[in-house]
Amino acid sequence: MTRLADLATPALVIERSRLVANLEQMKSRALALGVRLRPHMKVAKAVAIAEIAVEEKGRGIAVQTPAEAEFFAQAGYADITVCAAMIPSKLDRVARLADDDVGVTVITDSPDVARAIAAHGGHFAVLVEVDCGGHRAGVLPESPEAIEIAKILDGAPRVTFGGVLTNAAHCYQGRTRAEFEAIAEQERAAVVHVAERLSEAGIPCPVVSVGSTATAVFAKHLNGATETRPGLYVFNDLFRAGVGLCGRDDIALSLLSRVIGHYRSDNRLLIDAGVTSLSLDRGTERIEGGDQGFGVVLDEHLQPIAPGLKVAQLHTEHAWVGADEPLPFDSLPIGTMVRILPNHANNTATMHRHYDVVDGTSEVIARWPRQGGW
Amino acid sequence: MTRLADLATPALVIERSRLVANLEQMKSRALALGVRLRPHMKVAKAVAIAEIAVEEKGRGIAVQTPAEAEFFAQAGYADITVCAAMIPSKLDRVARLADDDVGVTVITDSPDVARAIAAHGGHFAVLVEVDCGGHRAGVLPESPEAIEIAKILDGAPRVTFGGVLTNAAHCYQGRTRAEFEAIAEQERAAVVHVAERLSEAGIPCPVVSVGSTATAVFAKHLNGATETRPGLYVFNDLFRAGVGLCGRDDIALSLLSRVIGHYRSDNRLLIDAGVTSLSLDRGTERIEGGDQGFGVVLDEHLQPIAPGLKVAQLHTEHAWVGADEPLPFDSLPIGTMVRILPNHANNTATMHRHYDVVDGTSEVIARWPRQGGW
Repeated sequence: MTRLADLATPALVIERSRLVANLEQMKSRALALGVRLRPHMKVAKAVAIAEIAVEEKGRGIAVQTPAEAEFFAQAGYADITVCAAMIPSKLDRVARLADDDVGVTVITDSPDVARAIAAHGGHFAVLVEVDCGGHRAGVLPESPEAIEIAKILDGAPRVTFGGVLTNAAHCYQGRTRAEFEAIAEQERAAVVHVAERLSEAGIPCPVVSVGSTATAVFAKHLNGATETRPGLYVFNDLFRAGVGLCGRDDIALSLLSRVIGHYRSDNRLLIDAGVTSLSLDRGTERIEGGDQGFGVVLDEHLQPIAPGLKVAQLHTEHAWVGADEPLPFDSLPIGTMVRILPNHANNTATMHRHYDVVDGTSEVIARWPRQGGW
Repeated sequence: MTRLADLATPALVIERSRLVANLEQMKSRALALGVRLRPHMKVAKAVAIAEIAVEEKGRGIAVQTPAEAEFFAQAGYADITVCAAMIPSKLDRVARLADDDVGVTVITDSPDVARAIAAHGGHFAVLVEVDCGGHRAGVLPESPEAIEIAKILDGAPRVTFGGVLTNAAHCYQGRTRAEFEAIAEQERAAVVHVAERLSEAGIPCPVVSVGSTATAVFAKHLNGATETRPGLYVFNDLFRAGVGLCGRDDIALSLLSRVIGHYRSDNRLLIDAGVTSLSLDRGTERIEGGDQGFGVVLDEHLQPIAPGLKVAQLHTEHAWVGADEPLPFDSLPIGTMVRILPNHANNTATMHRHYDVVDGTSEVIARWPRQGGW
């Protein structure tokens, strides 16, 4: 039996029961909203998590990169939407998946790229990406390009025009329930509006896909949408807890680290986690009164050690842990394990190649590989 | 023949001639300073780079983690200093290397850990870590612990007390030549002072090791020191160029990315690099008048595209590229390759598992694996 104490630190740890609860809750939520759940695997990047998230392999996932698409296709997922703006040089790779009987959907906001897709000969479904206010990518809802792109694709051989997709890239600008509800409605309305414009132009729009977890959690309804593609709900994190998207006890991901130094005169501990394992993310700094430094430090069992114990300063492979009150050094001898809740689960997870899985105890019940790369 | 255009993007690219020049320059510098060069491989994490950096495998390297020590030991490096505060639970792993005839040096600033090392039975050399002003780790130069630790280790079987080591963790607080020179002298003086205290106590101190690249570059002399352990000089980066530690043409590392979207009304491009490949580092923000966003954007040949072209905003797998003046969209069609100089080479490199190597042309002459993990 492997225990947390047997792991080399730092190590990325999943609490399985929290993970499963998060996944089940989102399934219920999608059911209540009347849309299909297409979990976005860009965060989890693990087959073991996709298997719980989608229930059946055939039901479909979203990914961000060709490498992720290949990884999940190899694991048997046969309905994959690649949610980053497609470019011509990446078409060959994703077309190879389609040749292997994987249903591949790609997205674009560019008539030039649409022409390249139409001319490529690969077997794709294509969605038009819509900018619903995040100004990351996508055509504006009123722009002529949506219709232009759909028309380019609609008649192309081996290509299916699939519909429209958006993602509220600005959803984390929200801080209150009212703000999240407004962003959710903005996301839904933008993409439904483009779908209606396409229908009026005689182009059917079977897929109307919304993206952000905030929308999935806070939308009052998703009328007109057909699917939702949340990703960060899988783990949750301090930022999401800080803005009310989850509770702190819903955070399924933590970084196991060990105390490697005592500095009593500075009232700080040194731990063996740093930029390379925790990430530079300071997302909670933007939450008024909710700054958690580089992460909240708990004990091996995810219980508090001292009030306000945080990662205060980050180096490459070290971090300082500090608190407002005097630290209990004597109960934290060198070697003591701590677990750090991350500001942003995605940014912490991306530093790692596997997850060690526990379920309410210190026993490590599984190690799940995590697929990085592009 | 593989060319940059054949690579999946984003991809981490080394300019070999710049790398070699950086490595050779530091060898000359160490020679001029009269100290041994022990390159710190925590940044490069690649055997191919160590081979150029040290000339001979026997000459010794520094690493930060047990995983790195194992990786380089397996590649034939037989003199390895593990430069993170050792803790008892990691002793077994590094002791196994010592059993395989690798000379392993570990460091500590704790009498408790020194006792654990003395009792372990592994074959180690041990250095006392000294805090020279960075307040990351180490005993203070005047503290009694340095002597205490040395005495614990001096008589222990199979253990050699090796001397003292420090690293100016605060060296990047410097901005001017005068400040760097002062920090370099602070680093040298602190560790030499402890070595002298140890000698006075009758404990010989064969190794007196200084750490930071800034010290290696700007020290007026290193009298009393025996070795230097720079790491970031290998690649250089925008932060180092911004504070005068190198020129921009000395930066050997860049991230290859492709244009994936045009947003003319916002005067911005979208590229397929993001947090997962470039890192969240905003280090140049701290340089007055020298903020480079998330990195400087150049063309495939590292030539300028437009004045002030920078990564302006970062998402997980996307980034916005912007400039002060109107962008030349027509000469940057979707699919165009760009290369991004990073703010902090270490933080960008840590997002990757290999380097693609070029040498002044677009031909990829090698792919070098990069060892992550702990």
